Amino acid sequence: MLFDQVQAASQRLKGQAHRTPVVTSRTLNARVGAEVFLKCENLQRIGAFKFRGAYNAIGLLSEAERARGVITYSSGNHAQAVALACQLLGAKAVVVMPDDAPAIKRAATAGYGAQIVSYDPAAQDRRQIAEALAAEHGYTLVPPYDHLAIVAGQGTAALELCEDVGPLDALLVPCGGGGLLSGSAIAAKGLCPACRVIGIEPELADDATRSFRTKTLQTVHHPPTIADGTRTPSLGTVTFPLVLDYVDDMRTVSEAAIIEAVRFLFERTKLVVEPSGALGVAALLSGAVAASGRIGVILSGGNIDAATMALILTQPGG
Amino acid sequence: MLFDQVQAASQRLKGQAHRTPVVTSRTLNARVGAEVFLKCENLQRIGAFKFRGAYNAIGLLSEAERARGVITYSSGNHAQAVALACQLLGAKAVVVMPDDAPAIKRAATAGYGAQIVSYDPAAQDRRQIAEALAAEHGYTLVPPYDHLAIVAGQGTAALELCEDVGPLDALLVPCGGGGLLSGSAIAAKGLCPACRVIGIEPELADDATRSFRTKTLQTVHHPPTIADGTRTPSLGTVTFPLVLDYVDDMRTVSEAAIIEAVRFLFERTKLVVEPSGALGVAALLSGAVAASGRIGVILSGGNIDAATMALILTQPGG
Repeated sequence: MLFDQVQAASQRLKGQAHRTPVVTSRTLNARVGAEVFLKCENLQRIGAFKFRGAYNAIGLLSEAERARGVITYSSGNHAQAVALACQLLGAKAVVVMPDDAPAIKRAATAGYGAQIVSYDPAAQDRRQIAEALAAEHGYTLVPPYDHLAIVAGQGTAALELCEDVGPLDALLVPCGGGGLLSGSAIAAKGLCPACRVIGIEPELADDATRSFRTKTLQTVHHPPTIADGTRTPSLGTVTFPLVLDYVDDMRTVSEAAIIEAVRFLFERTKLVVEPSGALGVAALLSGAVAASGRIGVILSGGNIDAATMALILTQPGG
Repeated sequence: MLFDQVQAASQRLKGQAHRTPVVTSRTLNARVGAEVFLKCENLQRIGAFKFRGAYNAIGLLSEAERARGVITYSSGNHAQAVALACQLLGAKAVVVMPDDAPAIKRAATAGYGAQIVSYDPAAQDRRQIAEALAAEHGYTLVPPYDHLAIVAGQGTAALELCEDVGPLDALLVPCGGGGLLSGSAIAAKGLCPACRVIGIEPELADDATRSFRTKTLQTVHHPPTIADGTRTPSLGTVTFPLVLDYVDDMRTVSEAAIIEAVRFLFERTKLVVEPSGALGVAALLSGAVAASGRIGVILSGGNIDAATMALILTQPGG
């Protein structure tokens, strides 16, 4: 049972991951006409939900595997997550990271003691680089989303949300590679079967939405969305079937709606949320999801560069 | 017993004020060499602790007093607090507000249905204006800090913090008019007598620190600090003796330290904290308070204009 794996991950994460708070805003409720519960994974360790999956996956490795080392590829939050989890669990960490990754994410990853291998995302394939290094050095590859232990770990945020606030009518979850989305759906359906789980993507990176509608895996390449956590080319071989099985619907939002949501969360909830993390609120504020009843939203992360936030805060018409 | 009044206020606020979360940051702990507990009053209703005192004070009024109406004067957060508390308790609200008050605070106050009376802070005395209108219309004056019911309400944040995290070695509290500081000290000493309570002020608005040292009320006029919540001219006739009785020490921090703290809280804790609200963290990061053991910090509010935050986030050297 996949739900059992989420519950086991939740036990494994006790005392390691924060049980993040759930924030409510009467202003948001009034604006969208529903009761909204914001699960603050921006307040998670490393500033994003990714710590949950990485710690769960690396915690499941053998001592010998941890001693040989762990390698991953990531555009950002997963890199920090693996680096921190390895630090806590006594494993060597190697992270293959695009040379245009946000400065805040690169610095934090190095700060946790990981070795960083840079690559040019326009010319090279990060997965091939990681697999070659893994083969050469005996590292275990911990991919950013396409792995059951990652999915189970990511699902623990929705598990806590459902435990803390009770039954939900809907749960809105950002979708990049689908690890958080499928894990959240497994958790929500396990605790609260009537809850509709809806994945949210940027219009500019709508591969998962098209995959969901056509039931055939669709891809997108280097989409120019501000939501850098969703720039993954497609769902994975593990996550795509899980999304088809467990997720009820997918919706997309515009770049303007994402920016409005980041700003709204800043001004009205006093939370720093990165663009990918604000997708659920963007869907509510823009009407991409028709809100009613009790709605959970995963605010998946808060790792936004100061310069990007300053730009969003000074946009005209904001 | 003043502590009983804090406990009674805590009962009165149940279901009205948020029981705000306590956030921890291993990065902050490592940086300052102590275990720090951040009480997130920036996530309180109206974005600041002020709701606690206002709701408590207005909740203690008679039906007849509430029917006649409530008046107050405030540079910001207290205005919104009174406006919202009046809306919830069915009282008319009139707010005397400087014509240079931050736009975000003025808009929010009007949004809660309060009538706003503007004045020129360089030329007029807000208290005199409010007292004249109160005499004319029969309004009850609910001052921003110099009132026992306000002090008791503000103390409920520290009460919750001590209840949630257990004994503290020190508690750092921003100080403007001394309502939050004296209330916090009463609460902390009631639950955890060994806790040292330290008030923090900007160097540019150090009237309370000088009053504390000299045991004579000192004043400051229109100090040019970025921490607009601490621009009050002095402690009050109620709060000054309470500060002398209950507070262990006072410290000041530079404008640069305040700005660094706002930025640190943004980058490392993903919290939006206004400059006044960041005074405790500024004291820790700058070494104004020598940190050790378990330290509580009241993050008193998050109402910072988008433009001001953008400026802080783009400062060179940040």
